[in-house]
Amino acid sequence: MKTIRASLIGFGAVGQGVAKVLLAKKDYLQSIGIDLRIVAIADSRTAVIDSEGVNLAAVLDSKKKKGVVGSEKISGTDIIKTIDHELVIETTPTNIDDGGVGLTNMLAAFEKGMDVVTSNKGPLALKYGELIETANRSGSKLKFEATVGGAMPVINLACDTLAGNKILSMEGIFNGTCNYILSRMVEEHASYEQMLAEAQELGIAEADPIYDVEGIDTASKLVIVANVIFGMNASYRDVTVTGITRITPEALLLANRDGYAIKLIGEVNDGKINVAPKLVPLDNPLAVGGTLNVFSVQTDISGPITITGRGAGSIETASAILSDIISLYKN
Amino acid sequence: MKTIRASLIGFGAVGQGVAKVLLAKKDYLQSIGIDLRIVAIADSRTAVIDSEGVNLAAVLDSKKKKGVVGSEKISGTDIIKTIDHELVIETTPTNIDDGGVGLTNMLAAFEKGMDVVTSNKGPLALKYGELIETANRSGSKLKFEATVGGAMPVINLACDTLAGNKILSMEGIFNGTCNYILSRMVEEHASYEQMLAEAQELGIAEADPIYDVEGIDTASKLVIVANVIFGMNASYRDVTVTGITRITPEALLLANRDGYAIKLIGEVNDGKINVAPKLVPLDNPLAVGGTLNVFSVQTDISGPITITGRGAGSIETASAILSDIISLYKN
Repeated sequence: MKTIRASLIGFGAVGQGVAKVLLAKKDYLQSIGIDLRIVAIADSRTAVIDSEGVNLAAVLDSKKKKGVVGSEKISGTDIIKTIDHELVIETTPTNIDDGGVGLTNMLAAFEKGMDVVTSNKGPLALKYGELIETANRSGSKLKFEATVGGAMPVINLACDTLAGNKILSMEGIFNGTCNYILSRMVEEHASYEQMLAEAQELGIAEADPIYDVEGIDTASKLVIVANVIFGMNASYRDVTVTGITRITPEALLLANRDGYAIKLIGEVNDGKINVAPKLVPLDNPLAVGGTLNVFSVQTDISGPITITGRGAGSIETASAILSDIISLYKN
Repeated sequence: MKTIRASLIGFGAVGQGVAKVLLAKKDYLQSIGIDLRIVAIADSRTAVIDSEGVNLAAVLDSKKKKGVVGSEKISGTDIIKTIDHELVIETTPTNIDDGGVGLTNMLAAFEKGMDVVTSNKGPLALKYGELIETANRSGSKLKFEATVGGAMPVINLACDTLAGNKILSMEGIFNGTCNYILSRMVEEHASYEQMLAEAQELGIAEADPIYDVEGIDTASKLVIVANVIFGMNASYRDVTVTGITRITPEALLLANRDGYAIKLIGEVNDGKINVAPKLVPLDNPLAVGGTLNVFSVQTDISGPITITGRGAGSIETASAILSDIISLYKN
């Protein structure tokens, strides 16, 4: 049995999802030789620390009832810097302007030779090269399946499962909010504004939806996948982006009548990274509905391979973090 | 660098695909520390043996020009029994009645403590439990991604990439011939017989199509996946099977008008293994067209995950064999 001491930095929806998944999978992890002990949890205001292992159920309860994880006044960054452990699970919110506290946390972890598993897109979409280089220099590992496609194992599929294949190009739908709005516009013959309002009511779209509907979220995820699969060192600012706000129900219905859907497709081809609405044949694997995400690669010997799944959700994103932890520490 | 001596038993379409892929990926394999040396190749009539490594290009050329791989008169089984090597790549044709020579070869390999990577469905669909037990007893490894779904990494996805998930149920399209016929019947408003004839002309269906269109091929693949994912010990004879021969174009068009496709779906749920035509919503990830295959699992923490790809083709099937070899011997 290998004991791994970990901190969980960030305790919003994803962080809480991680705590729930770790509670549910404790026995499973031990059955494959991993004794994962969470020695510290921090949210944006408080922290809880226990070198013998934090009581995850109690922390979830405290967060729900009191809005905070504990009573300690130490920041996540200082936990990384001062408490002995091997793994940082970084689930603070994405900051796409400068990487924010997530970037600080990852670099602090690597400085101490710790591994990082993260769901935080910002640092990866902005500073991929620097992060990988810093991690390599200190012998740390960085895993980030949860930054792209929620439960869909996009990165592990392309890098491990399809080992031996050369990936020639890739495309996909990486934003469930846009996919929901476009799918519902066809079903209801309704306008973008109407279906955005419905998505907001259902909690599928944010009150300020710009990040999703203008394609910025898609661009951030796409650049992360492009960097890891094609060894690029792009930032999300290198992506050409068109969102979905100008698509009309008439265009969608016309396309539908001819056997096509219109989808917000992110695409990497020939070194170019591009996000834009595109026509997709209805029986093509990319034409999935609802909030689903989909990711497709063209390979040299396996041909096209496509994977579809839930692109968001706290438990689904936590599942990607769990699979990264397993791949790091399983013998 | 790890040197792995391997035999390639069976040199039909898949065996030749393996030779081509190994030629193309020799440098890649060496870059990840695997020096794979094919020390013997057998087809049904002849063999070629070279302990320093067979010249794959020359053997492909001989097979093409003379119809045989070489001049030695030793059988594949005797190669396994008498020549020193570590890995048997078993690509002889599927025998679904008693497992045929493929079963003999695999058991002979395990008796000598050798690993087996195979595309041969018969032995797996009939004797899964016995094979795994025999392999375990002698410390041998058995990998069989290529038996199911061609290029689609079905087994590695469910067992490795989704590690940490409990698979609750699974369903999919495992036969490209049936999918082609059903897809074309809708497109052309044509009968089963007409589209079967077209598929036969294009080489997508065999002259005797029973194995495909009656669902036997789907049942064989399904039972292999069910055994490995759910730890069952089923044989393909335990599967309830209905084929596609009685589906009319009227039924397909009616379904299509209501937003559904009819697909030959293999399904494992609650310990029951079932193959039958089913209605699938057009925007569901299972509704893929042409000769594509698709495989979908319901998981406890990742929700539904679906993968789509080419279910057949010699290079595509060889790609699955390559990924199995890499997963066996990569550090």
